[in-house]
Amino acid sequence: MKRIDVVGFGPGGYEYMTVQAIEAMKAADLIVGYTTYIDLIRGIFPDKTFLNTPMTREVERCKIALEEAGKGQQVALVSSGDSGIYGMAGIMLQVVQASGEDIPVRIIPGVTAASAGASMLGAPLMNDFAVISLSDLMVPLEQIMLRVKCAAEGDFVICLYNPKSRKRKDYLEKASDIVSNFRKPETPVGIVRRVGRENSSCELTTLKELNNAEVDMFTIVIIGNSTTYVRDGKMITPRGYVLKEV
Amino acid sequence: MKRIDVVGFGPGGYEYMTVQAIEAMKAADLIVGYTTYIDLIRGIFPDKTFLNTPMTREVERCKIALEEAGKGQQVALVSSGDSGIYGMAGIMLQVVQASGEDIPVRIIPGVTAASAGASMLGAPLMNDFAVISLSDLMVPLEQIMLRVKCAAEGDFVICLYNPKSRKRKDYLEKASDIVSNFRKPETPVGIVRRVGRENSSCELTTLKELNNAEVDMFTIVIIGNSTTYVRDGKMITPRGYVLKEV
Repeated sequence: MKRIDVVGFGPGGYEYMTVQAIEAMKAADLIVGYTTYIDLIRGIFPDKTFLNTPMTREVERCKIALEEAGKGQQVALVSSGDSGIYGMAGIMLQVVQASGEDIPVRIIPGVTAASAGASMLGAPLMNDFAVISLSDLMVPLEQIMLRVKCAAEGDFVICLYNPKSRKRKDYLEKASDIVSNFRKPETPVGIVRRVGRENSSCELTTLKELNNAEVDMFTIVIIGNSTTYVRDGKMITPRGYVLKEV
Repeated sequence: MKRIDVVGFGPGGYEYMTVQAIEAMKAADLIVGYTTYIDLIRGIFPDKTFLNTPMTREVERCKIALEEAGKGQQVALVSSGDSGIYGMAGIMLQVVQASGEDIPVRIIPGVTAASAGASMLGAPLMNDFAVISLSDLMVPLEQIMLRVKCAAEGDFVICLYNPKSRKRKDYLEKASDIVSNFRKPETPVGIVRRVGRENSSCELTTLKELNNAEVDMFTIVIIGNSTTYVRDGKMITPRGYVLKEV
């Protein structure tokens, strides 16, 4: 019997992959994933067999992985970023458990978009932070906005995943309005597009200007806390000792 | 002129390192870091020159990195986990900026302890989460506990870094008391010790039993949200669609 590896391969580029992720993909008989993710890695592993399924077919994708593993194939089910953060880890475990089959699942973590995005902006995550997805496909909007409010109230740095899509044009605006009740209009905000991939770009703006920023579903938005500042083009959330000693 | 790479090498084991982190350490003339971290990687890069400084000497370490880079050395300043999450990224940028010297700093992200810990527990981070350090060396305790309260109120999965040290014996108890005001005593809690290193271990407990768990500063604690459950030894925070379809 073979195993299913749920592989987080990082934001996209080969340089962000871990040794474990690369080895798992090399060892796989079959690499299964969402079409866009497969396109990111196909060129890196040209000899592999790939199977891609469209977005929103997560459960179907896991069932395929399970079926192929049941036939004796070593399967790598891939996610971008960390497979354990909004990735395929949970669904894969749930599908295997619901099936009653005894196929081992190994979760391979990766560099998540918040980490890769932060590295491009400077060092915004040096203090406590909250990670929130603005996608309401599976989570009610009120719940999401309550989380935005609580994170703002707690002065967390806030990392927003999936900030905008064609169907969700105004969620980022709603979120920034909520945060504005707790933070100054000049609060630095970092925006990273296509983080860790070709043609990635980043931009520094402020809470007050966030609604004018160009943002899509491949963008990550990092809103600073009350101490975050920008200097020499870098977004930095300091910790206390540095202020004292530097 | 050379560059300073601030390298997050992941939780410890070689398999968790990214290609970029490995290449940066290989390319360095000098690898600078906290003694414990240097001990983790010395065996992997036996030919390298290392310079280690004790804990709490972060600023000193950055000044050494800057001085050596100024002499024309290619320096890798290493952190475990992600250099951008409670790591050396911010301090290094601040030290370079305060010096007025024009030495480029590249931040190399890595797999943070929350990601590696979650992968050992199952899939607890499939929904929004907050990352909080219980170390009050640099952040006031009241601020930390306010964040715990806000994270609990927002039903975030909560990842606690640095949950305990010799000087901070009861902070984890304080935090779990606060969370208990918002969540059921049976809420699953995952505890991972020495995550991603030799002799790592993990344990599943509940919010009610958290105070009895064996926890130290090399431990990460992940407290589930209101929907997190344990099945077949795996801690899972589901997203909506799975409940419907599986």
